[in-house]
Amino acid sequence: MDSEISKIGQLPEFIFGHLSTKEGRLKQARTTRVGFDHDSALHPHDPAENQAITISVRVGVDIAIKAVTLYYTTDGTLPQVPSANPDRDPHLFSIPMRRTEIQWDTLQWGYLETWTAEIPGQPKNTHIQYLIQGMTNTGTIVYSPYFDTAARELTDNLDDFDLPFIKKQARKNSPQIYGFYVDNETIPTWLREAVIYQIFVDRFAPDPDTDFSTPKDLDGFYGGTLRGITSKLDYLADLGINCLWLTPIFPSSSYHGYDPTDYGSVEARLGTEEDFQILLDEAHRRNIRVVLDYVTNHLSNQHPAFIAAQKDQTDSAYKWFDFINWPDEYECFFNVPSQPKIDSDCPQARAYLIENAQRWLERGVDGFRLDCAHGSTHAFWSCFRTATRAVNPDSVTFGEITSFPAFIRSFAGRMDGCLDFKLLEILRGFFAFGTLKVSEFDKILQQHYAYFNSNLVLPSFLDNHDMNRFLWTVKGDQRRLRLAALCQFTLPEPPIIYYGTEVGLSQLQEVGRLEESRLPMLWGKAQDSSLLEFYKNLIGLRRQIPEIWNLPRQTLLADDRLGVYAYLLGSHTVVLNNSSEVSTISLSNLQDSKLLLSTSSSPSWNPEKNQLQLSPFAGAIFQQLSS
Amino acid sequence: MDSEISKIGQLPEFIFGHLSTKEGRLKQARTTRVGFDHDSALHPHDPAENQAITISVRVGVDIAIKAVTLYYTTDGTLPQVPSANPDRDPHLFSIPMRRTEIQWDTLQWGYLETWTAEIPGQPKNTHIQYLIQGMTNTGTIVYSPYFDTAARELTDNLDDFDLPFIKKQARKNSPQIYGFYVDNETIPTWLREAVIYQIFVDRFAPDPDTDFSTPKDLDGFYGGTLRGITSKLDYLADLGINCLWLTPIFPSSSYHGYDPTDYGSVEARLGTEEDFQILLDEAHRRNIRVVLDYVTNHLSNQHPAFIAAQKDQTDSAYKWFDFINWPDEYECFFNVPSQPKIDSDCPQARAYLIENAQRWLERGVDGFRLDCAHGSTHAFWSCFRTATRAVNPDSVTFGEITSFPAFIRSFAGRMDGCLDFKLLEILRGFFAFGTLKVSEFDKILQQHYAYFNSNLVLPSFLDNHDMNRFLWTVKGDQRRLRLAALCQFTLPEPPIIYYGTEVGLSQLQEVGRLEESRLPMLWGKAQDSSLLEFYKNLIGLRRQIPEIWNLPRQTLLADDRLGVYAYLLGSHTVVLNNSSEVSTISLSNLQDSKLLLSTSSSPSWNPEKNQLQLSPFAGAIFQQLSS
Repeated sequence: MDSEISKIGQLPEFIFGHLSTKEGRLKQARTTRVGFDHDSALHPHDPAENQAITISVRVGVDIAIKAVTLYYTTDGTLPQVPSANPDRDPHLFSIPMRRTEIQWDTLQWGYLETWTAEIPGQPKNTHIQYLIQGMTNTGTIVYSPYFDTAARELTDNLDDFDLPFIKKQARKNSPQIYGFYVDNETIPTWLREAVIYQIFVDRFAPDPDTDFSTPKDLDGFYGGTLRGITSKLDYLADLGINCLWLTPIFPSSSYHGYDPTDYGSVEARLGTEEDFQILLDEAHRRNIRVVLDYVTNHLSNQHPAFIAAQKDQTDSAYKWFDFINWPDEYECFFNVPSQPKIDSDCPQARAYLIENAQRWLERGVDGFRLDCAHGSTHAFWSCFRTATRAVNPDSVTFGEITSFPAFIRSFAGRMDGCLDFKLLEILRGFFAFGTLKVSEFDKILQQHYAYFNSNLVLPSFLDNHDMNRFLWTVKGDQRRLRLAALCQFTLPEPPIIYYGTEVGLSQLQEVGRLEESRLPMLWGKAQDSSLLEFYKNLIGLRRQIPEIWNLPRQTLLADDRLGVYAYLLGSHTVVLNNSSEVSTISLSNLQDSKLLLSTSSSPSWNPEKNQLQLSPFAGAIFQQLSS
Repeated sequence: MDSEISKIGQLPEFIFGHLSTKEGRLKQARTTRVGFDHDSALHPHDPAENQAITISVRVGVDIAIKAVTLYYTTDGTLPQVPSANPDRDPHLFSIPMRRTEIQWDTLQWGYLETWTAEIPGQPKNTHIQYLIQGMTNTGTIVYSPYFDTAARELTDNLDDFDLPFIKKQARKNSPQIYGFYVDNETIPTWLREAVIYQIFVDRFAPDPDTDFSTPKDLDGFYGGTLRGITSKLDYLADLGINCLWLTPIFPSSSYHGYDPTDYGSVEARLGTEEDFQILLDEAHRRNIRVVLDYVTNHLSNQHPAFIAAQKDQTDSAYKWFDFINWPDEYECFFNVPSQPKIDSDCPQARAYLIENAQRWLERGVDGFRLDCAHGSTHAFWSCFRTATRAVNPDSVTFGEITSFPAFIRSFAGRMDGCLDFKLLEILRGFFAFGTLKVSEFDKILQQHYAYFNSNLVLPSFLDNHDMNRFLWTVKGDQRRLRLAALCQFTLPEPPIIYYGTEVGLSQLQEVGRLEESRLPMLWGKAQDSSLLEFYKNLIGLRRQIPEIWNLPRQTLLADDRLGVYAYLLGSHTVVLNNSSEVSTISLSNLQDSKLLLSTSSSPSWNPEKNQLQLSPFAGAIFQQLSS
């Protein structure tokens, strides 16, 4: 009802990369109306056994297609570009696709076509992998996704567009492999119940009885280790979290580890294999799960496979990568040459990534946080989940996909969850930047959770290692952090705490380079004990009373004038005053309620008068007393 | 497959108003993602008896809606804004609508909701009229279409947006009335078979044995009359057309007549009532139908109703119009104060317009070309068609709607046809401006006719009185006019010839003001007899051999290099060389064919060699000889 929402169009941060700006969103919208693209449009999206599957492909305004064929395999072999005589490939099935819909599109001023075909129902545990081939009116063979010169012009230069695969496809016109498993996978309950703590390993804790190093620069080594983490497990258990997410622990020359040189061992700087085993065992002894950060999108240019590929084009590792001009020009992560991109559809690369993941599970890890997950295909991820589940049926996978909700939702059934970047945007918009009114925040929250169905867990977070810490964005105003955390912890999805948030860790400077938000953990007296206490209580409440997050949430009040937001969860009421004024609230639900937790030391609560006075940026949870 | 198509984004003309530019299209696309708008989304779109009808309304990214109600009548009464106690209105039914879908929208970066409700099946001849009421999260009542400040900001200033109704709704928040008839109306066959000739009455023919006047300015009176037209009926019959569309003949002070002061009589300058009757009878005697131009969007500020409304707010005519600040500020056609807009949902205005239309049908006219038809509601048009059919079951209605195809298609079932502006755009793009390659033209043609289903006739035209004449756009190059006409006459929908096109009438200057394309008709030696002969042959062919337009069209050749387009219609083949080079073509379909018609005097056709040589911008039709 208000114009404020439009400010989301220009958030003062850059969470979604090019999608953070109005121009980027327009370009993305234009892109989905040109070219020849499957866009992972299948129905049902996560098929069960014997369910027929309708596959669709869009023909954009710029391209004329006269025939489309769907090629697929069901035996786990990768579908190959069909030869002139497809009968020669005994693995490959083919079905002609038909034009089933024409829509008008005003934005690109033309007609969009949808072509579809149906894959017959398949038995359980079938891995269907497929590709889509089109023939243009002029007889050219193209593979989804395909975008040519016209598409680039119509989208104001598609080259800048960073959805994965497209650059490669546009250049090579080679097929993308799509895929999914026919299964009845469910998401392990523990993930839904998790309170996750994200540890940036080099920055969390040095060996016991030693101090952090003091490198000259923020991108140096501070000396956090696995033994350091182990030594802090009691602290973490006391905090109340039940899941650790460790940033990459594999060999790497960088302090962050997101460019591994090996996926099967531990970086010596961080500790020994035994150190890791001890950490695992000690965590488990405290009922804390351990999730590893796993990077399938790219690796280090010092990884043996890349070295071999750069040395010799005939080496089998050559196909792991996507060379533009061998040996020195190749696809890489954000154009960083030290991080060459992996082709997850290359069978050997796929096997390497999956087998190493399996080995970590065999050692006892509980799952993976999948870095830059949109850099690998659905076919890869469905394969990855099935293979990891085979080792540990209780293991989990959740991905980092910094893109728009429709794209994120397409990964449902391929992994167990995705980090909720859209929620991050509105939490920061509402609690940190004031770009959303209460009624708008309420509306988007409701729509957001209704849009995602239950087969994708959406861990929530207020910040991470790639952006300004929340506390920094509110200029150190802890009231606002507590208020945001109270909301975060009373939402349905598992919350993540970025290390140090609970003790007031912030930054020295605005994030220009990401290191600003990766300062070493505060220990001892440097910790804010009051904030820590609040977090302990909040975590404790969430774990003891699942009702405050797993029941349907019902809005009681969304008062734009007061800036007050209140909602009901069973017999619990959450009230948030997101304004800089004291607010006095009367809610019938609060009658016969007791205060469970408050973000401020002194909420004025008069049960007789049913009058709650909340100081600026304060919030509280109440529990109705059984009558 | 080529970038040329993108040029359509910036055609060197302005057919679609603000939708002619990339910016305007973006604004339109943004508009369909904000606000609270039914957008005439009902399914089925043209319901038959006893068919349940699903009504949808979109809730845009900027608005939070907590309840929606559909109100409708089935007895012909206009649904009124419901009172606090709707039971008091015995005509009004109400159904709660439910949110049935949430979609993500990247362009406006938010969620779109769809709410739906079902109207039960109704008996034949029921006129369902309805309105949609929403309640925002903050308790405000709104009616579709509703766009507030936020919507305006999100669309880069919605105020400039010229879809009808929205301005009024945004200001008054009064309901738009939607509606349709439950019927089994079919489109009279004669309209599909028509070859229509558009006469701009003041500019076609003066009284017999007199000359055109020579006004000082192009917006003066040239003196065309009804008697003049009657005197040229033999000419028109000889030309071969079978339907006349006359620009408005009603009393008006303007030379064009699009601002009537009375809808029931003939402008004295053009002739008497008897003159009109004679014209009608003489046309019919020659099997020529007569269609009148009818303006329901606006009238003259000298019309008695408007004079009364401006004089007295309590006058019943006050409600015919949409006063912003009575008496001098009111909605009008393109902000021209002399042409106040009519509210077609005002019962009295509706009755006036419909009853006068009925009277013209009683006098013998065959139907109406509906000027600016998107200025009146679906509810009005469904009513209008049923009322006019009641007088003459063989009468027709076709509208002028200069908007995008999806919007035009929404009028199916409410009128018999719509002028095909999208086809106009691509015909001119391909044959006049060279902005489309053959394969693109072929593709869009096919999509276009597949998109529109058969319950809307789409009369085709190369130009009209509101734009540069085709011959002017090609700098007088008759080869290109003939080629475009050959294509136009071999497409499935009824062709319109704008008066004078057949004899080489062009312009003195580029259209800045529209009068440039409304020069007086050429008669006698001023006529190009060769072009006239071509048109006679072309019309004759279309009327004698329906196969050349009413059979499925099959592309034989769409050669971008040669610029040659060829298609098959039953045993007939059309070949068009839309290039400035001689093209030599061999088509197996031409074997054993005879040349039926050619745009140039000398196509070199060697049946033995099966070799056709077409000079630049030449085309031909061949007929396969029965073997």
